[in-house]
Amino acid sequence: MTTTATTLKGQPLDRPALDSMLRRRMFYTPAFEIYGGVAGLYDYGPPGCSLQANIIDVWRKHFVLEEDMLEVDCSVLTPHEVLKTSGHVDKFADWMCKDPKNGEIIRADHFVEEILESRLKGDKEARGQKVEEKEEDPKKKKRKAKGVQEAVKLDDAVVQEYEEVLAKIDNYNGEELGELIKKYDLKNPASGVQPSPPVAFNLMFQTAIGPSSNLPGYLRPETAQGQFLNFSKLLEFNQGQVPFASASIGRSYRNEISPRAGLLRVREFLMAEIEHFVDPEGGKKHPRFHEVKDIELVLLNRTTQLSGKTHVEKISIGKAVADGIVDNETLGYFMARIHLFLKKIGVDQSKIRFRQHMANEMAHYAADCWDAELLTSYGWVECVGCADRSAYDLSVHAKRTGAPLIVREQRAEPLVVEEWEVELNKKKFGPHFKKDGKTVEAAVLATTQEQREALAKDLNEKGSITVEVAGVGDGKVEIPKDLITIERRTRTEHVREYTPNVIEPSFGIGRILYALMEHNFWTRASEGGDEARGVLSFPPTVAPTKVLIVPLSSNEQFRPICYKLSQRLRKLGISSRIDDSSATIGKRYSRNDELGTPLGITVDFQTVQDSTITLRDRDTTKQVRADEDKIIAAIQSVVDGSKEWKDVEAELPIFEGQEIEVATR
Amino acid sequence: MTTTATTLKGQPLDRPALDSMLRRRMFYTPAFEIYGGVAGLYDYGPPGCSLQANIIDVWRKHFVLEEDMLEVDCSVLTPHEVLKTSGHVDKFADWMCKDPKNGEIIRADHFVEEILESRLKGDKEARGQKVEEKEEDPKKKKRKAKGVQEAVKLDDAVVQEYEEVLAKIDNYNGEELGELIKKYDLKNPASGVQPSPPVAFNLMFQTAIGPSSNLPGYLRPETAQGQFLNFSKLLEFNQGQVPFASASIGRSYRNEISPRAGLLRVREFLMAEIEHFVDPEGGKKHPRFHEVKDIELVLLNRTTQLSGKTHVEKISIGKAVADGIVDNETLGYFMARIHLFLKKIGVDQSKIRFRQHMANEMAHYAADCWDAELLTSYGWVECVGCADRSAYDLSVHAKRTGAPLIVREQRAEPLVVEEWEVELNKKKFGPHFKKDGKTVEAAVLATTQEQREALAKDLNEKGSITVEVAGVGDGKVEIPKDLITIERRTRTEHVREYTPNVIEPSFGIGRILYALMEHNFWTRASEGGDEARGVLSFPPTVAPTKVLIVPLSSNEQFRPICYKLSQRLRKLGISSRIDDSSATIGKRYSRNDELGTPLGITVDFQTVQDSTITLRDRDTTKQVRADEDKIIAAIQSVVDGSKEWKDVEAELPIFEGQEIEVATR
Repeated sequence: MTTTATTLKGQPLDRPALDSMLRRRMFYTPAFEIYGGVAGLYDYGPPGCSLQANIIDVWRKHFVLEEDMLEVDCSVLTPHEVLKTSGHVDKFADWMCKDPKNGEIIRADHFVEEILESRLKGDKEARGQKVEEKEEDPKKKKRKAKGVQEAVKLDDAVVQEYEEVLAKIDNYNGEELGELIKKYDLKNPASGVQPSPPVAFNLMFQTAIGPSSNLPGYLRPETAQGQFLNFSKLLEFNQGQVPFASASIGRSYRNEISPRAGLLRVREFLMAEIEHFVDPEGGKKHPRFHEVKDIELVLLNRTTQLSGKTHVEKISIGKAVADGIVDNETLGYFMARIHLFLKKIGVDQSKIRFRQHMANEMAHYAADCWDAELLTSYGWVECVGCADRSAYDLSVHAKRTGAPLIVREQRAEPLVVEEWEVELNKKKFGPHFKKDGKTVEAAVLATTQEQREALAKDLNEKGSITVEVAGVGDGKVEIPKDLITIERRTRTEHVREYTPNVIEPSFGIGRILYALMEHNFWTRASEGGDEARGVLSFPPTVAPTKVLIVPLSSNEQFRPICYKLSQRLRKLGISSRIDDSSATIGKRYSRNDELGTPLGITVDFQTVQDSTITLRDRDTTKQVRADEDKIIAAIQSVVDGSKEWKDVEAELPIFEGQEIEVATR
Repeated sequence: MTTTATTLKGQPLDRPALDSMLRRRMFYTPAFEIYGGVAGLYDYGPPGCSLQANIIDVWRKHFVLEEDMLEVDCSVLTPHEVLKTSGHVDKFADWMCKDPKNGEIIRADHFVEEILESRLKGDKEARGQKVEEKEEDPKKKKRKAKGVQEAVKLDDAVVQEYEEVLAKIDNYNGEELGELIKKYDLKNPASGVQPSPPVAFNLMFQTAIGPSSNLPGYLRPETAQGQFLNFSKLLEFNQGQVPFASASIGRSYRNEISPRAGLLRVREFLMAEIEHFVDPEGGKKHPRFHEVKDIELVLLNRTTQLSGKTHVEKISIGKAVADGIVDNETLGYFMARIHLFLKKIGVDQSKIRFRQHMANEMAHYAADCWDAELLTSYGWVECVGCADRSAYDLSVHAKRTGAPLIVREQRAEPLVVEEWEVELNKKKFGPHFKKDGKTVEAAVLATTQEQREALAKDLNEKGSITVEVAGVGDGKVEIPKDLITIERRTRTEHVREYTPNVIEPSFGIGRILYALMEHNFWTRASEGGDEARGVLSFPPTVAPTKVLIVPLSSNEQFRPICYKLSQRLRKLGISSRIDDSSATIGKRYSRNDELGTPLGITVDFQTVQDSTITLRDRDTTKQVRADEDKIIAAIQSVVDGSKEWKDVEAELPIFEGQEIEVATR
């Protein structure tokens, strides 16, 4: 298991170099940069936009099409009442401190983490140990610069205590974080003082819907609620059959307190969420679990974390469910499917782990939750959540609105229920109790089966019963025999009604996209050896552009050939780009290695004569030469995944002409 | 040219029937319906979501890929300053009235339109003319019910006046709308009183970004601004070459005053926008204009509308540009391309017109604008805007931020400029004028070429000049010869700098989607003749699902065959759905006619024996029968557009078995 961020080839990851390349090639760019930018808001340029679209395309095929999920597209603007009911108005918050001296607003958990990590680092230095240089964000650096952490040695016990706190940092509430700040005297290095006690800050963006400003609303913090609210219609669309899943791809919003860490912590982001509705009875089995049971995942469970450790184990999902580490088959099935998806798009297999949420960390709605975390230069980053939301959401919305968010299922065998039933003689009951009638009735109907059995006995023996009714007389009410019957009766239920449970795989597309860029980045020495050149080795499926077409020079003869090639590729659904700029072929290939374009075609003077073209592989820089049809067929098989470059190299003649030319320029 | 809404087969359009079908089949549904809904917010269910994705897919291929546009994905949250600069904070507003009696909030232009149309209708009734029943929205109906319009005959002159007002209704500002309300004594039928004078209501949703609420922001009202702000980076990405276009697909938000009219007036919507950057010199020619010049469009120009008429003419775009009806080739090129796009996705060709904006109607940034309007049961609806935004946006953002949003172009021939130049003797000039130095200098440098020529003459003849400088002395300042030189000089410019103009085709995807549903809807009598059944005859390209797979019955033998067929189709990228519900085949086909699924496969007992399957055409209900390979090949050619159903029918044996069975059930 890898523990530090590296490039695809195992080199130490130089994040500033990667970042500068990603911005130069316009994968992404700070939004509103000419106005000074806004923290946590980014725009995607053409390659980022295309990479995102390709990831979404794979996602849709892997999940929605593969399992006939019902995709919906719901409103982002959401009225207050919906999010009040879902619990987000009251509970969707982070803990925020203010620096009393310089007014800086600080996210409490990040602050505690940062200062303790910095002390541990100082301790290591004092002990003369090698310190891993984790790349820091600029603001952190600024803080450091002002309040440099001395190399101070700590007691062994203190080191262990800090490490335990860090292992469960996500488990603390605001009060506890406040106590940690006091206990360890954590000061903001920028001001030299302790920040104020943490207060809850709700992360939803608020707005008002309509001209009279009387309908407060929010930008949704997740796409899930729209899916829950449409549950009954979706069930009907699915002709009443359960289990089924809905899915949604769309933006959500979180007003992060102090977003740093680039694309990893943003205020506006694309999510892809699945809500899989399942019968809670029968242990949440999944019919296709056998297809994935042997897939091995790296798991970091709750117990390990609470004991202050971060030890992981690699285990098949079948065993993890059998051993009760993962609660049920459906949750396990989706964890394995998430793993396969991440693999398919090119995430480094040695940089994925699934971490279970601790009790306090879990969202207010979740019964269990495992995050797929990806290792980046920012550490382990939650990229996909896989939560069991139980019946929470459907229940609260049903209760609030009266809408029947339930499944009605014809029973294969009618259910025979034998129960103590209460029947009131309405004609006499009302007049007898007058204004207290409703209250007494409610109290009687609220009795349990056990109470009813005893009451039936009393009624039989004494000819009346005494029931406790708060607020009527002295709190005890006598009901004579002629007003009430309590009997054991049998009834037959043909229909079963239940609220389904929800398993929710939830994907942060931007985080996955960023991790993917780190995992596929590496540098190679240029032929002259003077500078390292960046390469993004995306799998062809997700690469922003599949083929670069370069004419050898600006000779007019090449233009129609290039155009014809791009038209042919377009017809096959393969994206290409012609680079007929005046840069050398070598520079043009370099540019496209940085853009992650897997294949390159060169059109030269020989092409004009015999219609052969060369095909270059981004990762090996090897080239083959053949006629147009063979090259196009090779491209098609590499792009659709049926062949790899080594197959192409084995089948078509190697070409070495231009590489030499590139090297000599 | 069609003038009233009809179905695909020319039947009068029954909107309530269509709407109820669209909701039943979950094309769309009011958002938050179980909470009572919010006006102007809708969710798309599975077929609507898929239809939308397919429209977007065609759009991306037709525009972005075809012309190598640079697609970007920008932030929706936008800080105040950006939209202040763009003019949206001050000018992006509708005129709003309030009913002083019942508090109703009314959009002024819609109100005037509604009441005048209602009076004209009353007049027609009084004259005994046939009145076209336009389908009304529920709120309008309510208004009517309370204040029923009597059949009152109007003077001929009044009728003409009303018609002229209606033809240019989009041209009035708030004051003018207020005058119309007074002049014609327009009362809200619901209350019997005139609404208050119109006030401007800004349509942007406001929010605050960050925890300290000190950064006010809005949800973007269009995707365009993000593209403008990234102009310099996009230009660099395009290696400095102009013209080029950026494109963006994403949600935008407008806080409509009183949204009615279903999907046509919503507060949250998907836009697809292109910003084509072009050199303003040389008449905005377009290199591919010749490809489209013979395409005929239906145009309703500004002059016609201002004369109070709605007469249209059909004219080739080549002639329209040559005659100056459409300003330039680039604008004309995109109008033709928009027309082709709408045709490709299945919009009724007889229900498209292009209407030119009138001066007051035009957005604050536009120099010229033509809307592609589609005829629906709500009348003519703006679905695509095609605006010439000139250099407005790039200029204001450059001015505000100092960012160089310009193109620098090496001149093929250096430009030699001969001009009168002013040079000051700084050493003497400052001390001479002391505190007034700067003001005098600015006044001198602001002189025109003509003025300089005269001043040079004075200087030569009199040894000094007199310049008007407001605010200095008596407003006239004398400058002696030793402080200033004015000479005719020659300089050579190698680089040309200019701010490009922007042509912006802007698509409201939801409106197009709705018009498409109306245009492709029709009903056919069922075989028994008892009820009309709805059909949505979408072209295969955009149909939500391409193939329905129905097993004849729930016999277990059919299941693996259906599954295998769906897998085969999936591999070809063709979406299918298996309907193995217990409904009759006829009912299952009906359901899919309503969903717009163009083709249906039936698996029956013969399939088990000889592997032949039947293929049914949605529009004709005709069927053919052949072996699996032939049927799959037929499906593929219909879906990719290389064949039509009549070709399939000509090639494969007709099958009549099941249709009879359907009819007899």
